[in-house]
Amino acid sequence: MPHFNPLVERLTPPPVPSVLAWAKAYDGAKGPLIDLSQAVPGYPAHPEMLKWLGEAAASPAYAGYGAIEGEAELRQAYAEHVSTLYGAPVTAASIHITSGCNQAFTAAAMAIAGAGDTVVMTNPYYFNQETTLAMLGINVELVPCDAGAGFLPEIETIASAVRPGVRALALVSPNNPTGAVYPPDLIRRIYEICRGAGTWLILDETYRDFLPDAAAAPHSLLQAKGWEEGFIGLYSFSKSFCIPGHRLGAITAGPALIAQVTKVMDNLQICPPRAAQAAVARALPALTDWRLGNRAEIAARARALETVMGRLPQWNLKAIGAYFAYIRHPFPDIDSQFVAEKLAKLAGILCLSGDSFGEGQESYLRFAFANADVPTIQKLEERLSGFALPGI
Amino acid sequence: MPHFNPLVERLTPPPVPSVLAWAKAYDGAKGPLIDLSQAVPGYPAHPEMLKWLGEAAASPAYAGYGAIEGEAELRQAYAEHVSTLYGAPVTAASIHITSGCNQAFTAAAMAIAGAGDTVVMTNPYYFNQETTLAMLGINVELVPCDAGAGFLPEIETIASAVRPGVRALALVSPNNPTGAVYPPDLIRRIYEICRGAGTWLILDETYRDFLPDAAAAPHSLLQAKGWEEGFIGLYSFSKSFCIPGHRLGAITAGPALIAQVTKVMDNLQICPPRAAQAAVARALPALTDWRLGNRAEIAARARALETVMGRLPQWNLKAIGAYFAYIRHPFPDIDSQFVAEKLAKLAGILCLSGDSFGEGQESYLRFAFANADVPTIQKLEERLSGFALPGI
Repeated sequence: MPHFNPLVERLTPPPVPSVLAWAKAYDGAKGPLIDLSQAVPGYPAHPEMLKWLGEAAASPAYAGYGAIEGEAELRQAYAEHVSTLYGAPVTAASIHITSGCNQAFTAAAMAIAGAGDTVVMTNPYYFNQETTLAMLGINVELVPCDAGAGFLPEIETIASAVRPGVRALALVSPNNPTGAVYPPDLIRRIYEICRGAGTWLILDETYRDFLPDAAAAPHSLLQAKGWEEGFIGLYSFSKSFCIPGHRLGAITAGPALIAQVTKVMDNLQICPPRAAQAAVARALPALTDWRLGNRAEIAARARALETVMGRLPQWNLKAIGAYFAYIRHPFPDIDSQFVAEKLAKLAGILCLSGDSFGEGQESYLRFAFANADVPTIQKLEERLSGFALPGI
Repeated sequence: MPHFNPLVERLTPPPVPSVLAWAKAYDGAKGPLIDLSQAVPGYPAHPEMLKWLGEAAASPAYAGYGAIEGEAELRQAYAEHVSTLYGAPVTAASIHITSGCNQAFTAAAMAIAGAGDTVVMTNPYYFNQETTLAMLGINVELVPCDAGAGFLPEIETIASAVRPGVRALALVSPNNPTGAVYPPDLIRRIYEICRGAGTWLILDETYRDFLPDAAAAPHSLLQAKGWEEGFIGLYSFSKSFCIPGHRLGAITAGPALIAQVTKVMDNLQICPPRAAQAAVARALPALTDWRLGNRAEIAARARALETVMGRLPQWNLKAIGAYFAYIRHPFPDIDSQFVAEKLAKLAGILCLSGDSFGEGQESYLRFAFANADVPTIQKLEERLSGFALPGI
């Protein structure tokens, strides 16, 4: 057989499909499956959202090709949303719609780095960002984030890793997998370090709509003069509107970078799927209250999980944030992959193992607690307290 | 400002947006604009297609994440379609759904080649395939296709270009931009050359549904023993179902290659947009007759264009096929980009210039004639015969 690309061949297969396979092997003995694996809000999309999606998809107006950068109405609506949230004037020219946030990261990374270049990431990391860079032949350097520091990056460590020649620093806040929320001051200081080194700061804020305080800007970077020359913001409409199957995300960046992303996106996809863009453009202003309600609900779920974990001292809740919790399991010498598999098959608790998220994460599990409602989260107490690994 | 990726920075911007800008500068003096630029069927999607799109998009069943490889029902329906068309048993395990055919090409190329590898393409080429390889740092070598040979590749030229170490040969049949239809025997001989060299054959068949004979298999490769180890077929649902805005394409390849593509696609997009997949899975068997009717209509448009061009000897129809015609313009020393711009602005005829499609194509224009109905095509006669370049 002809060759595969060795950079792709050596990627581990995506973790989610194998986790879903574990789910199928669970016999229901402990009650219904509790799925804390792939980040999917455990409540449905708003009925109006579904109606608008249906209307747009049935319309001949969106059957043809659209603009590479995205529908004008969604770019405008999202620019207004961003402007309000960050207290800074951002125009549609600084917005590029993508088919989900993975694609936003891929397109942004390709626009600024190629094979042999270096990008710095935090460890643990969101695995698709690491595999994306790896398959492109981009060198990944990892900055450790320690449990002792709440999985926040330390400014000295960032300063020594980010140096001239490093193409980008890629961060995720609220973090995936740990849930850690990076304070605005920390983000600003990291940004200044990047600016000093001539390094792009890529900030994935997929989970920002689940921060407890809707009024507080997650960071001040868009207020910084010249932010267009250093900052690239990534976002997903999937989680906030409960429509990951429709694949929509966005890049916020200066027009010069957007122009490069447009060339990449034309090759990757020509244009993002259009009908969903039209629907989200309507939903973005219209469903503000609904999203606020979800924000409160997710905060309640976080509190419920904290309460449950407080009663399970062996299962050590090391970090919890806007969507995820990062938990140290009670089996010191056992790999988290094995623990996660047994949790799924024996206890009906589906989560991702820490070792999917980077080096030295074998003791951790990621709980996407936002997937489950409070009564379901409360059921974790009995299942986890009664859980034992067979033969151990 | 930090650096961009020079491989992306040096790409020329996509041609279609600038062509659409020319259209806006046309004052209507010669009558309504005749748009032969981006390949978009000049008839709407079937009403049932739109209805199914709307139903699926409004359904909570497709709001969540789907399988990376695509919806099981579409993979199955397309596998059956491919099996029937090519007279060979192809299963769903050999199908990967993508978000359009550009993405199918990108994902396939990334699965088998990385920066520094070499892929051979024909010249002229479909520009997005060339820019995709270029932005990935993959070396592109061009095999010339001459007008004298009807823009078909010559077997000796292919044999000398495809050699051990070349990762892939990328072909498009029916061809974009020339329209040339590669005969099954030629494709088979090229495939054997690739097999002998250990080189993947990537064949983009986006326009195969517009071949005049619905019953004839476009090639015999899927009947070849071990095709999974050498052939990668690409396809688009956009043209056949008139739904490019919904972004759906497909890869047909052996399961080992599909597994690599799945890793790439997880990074690029997690999953293709789901609702449209569900709708196309219904449409694929149900709208067979409608597609047959379109096939006949496109063939009628081809004949109409041949008739028109026969009366315009200065405009030399060098090739015509399933969707496109490739025409030598009557201004020997003038670049096709200039001619195309003036055609748009002065004569209201929108087409792409040959120099978007490769080296030495300055004398050619691509007419996507399938976009226009027969009466519209007939209007080309007056507009082209009366066309003169200002100052020439």
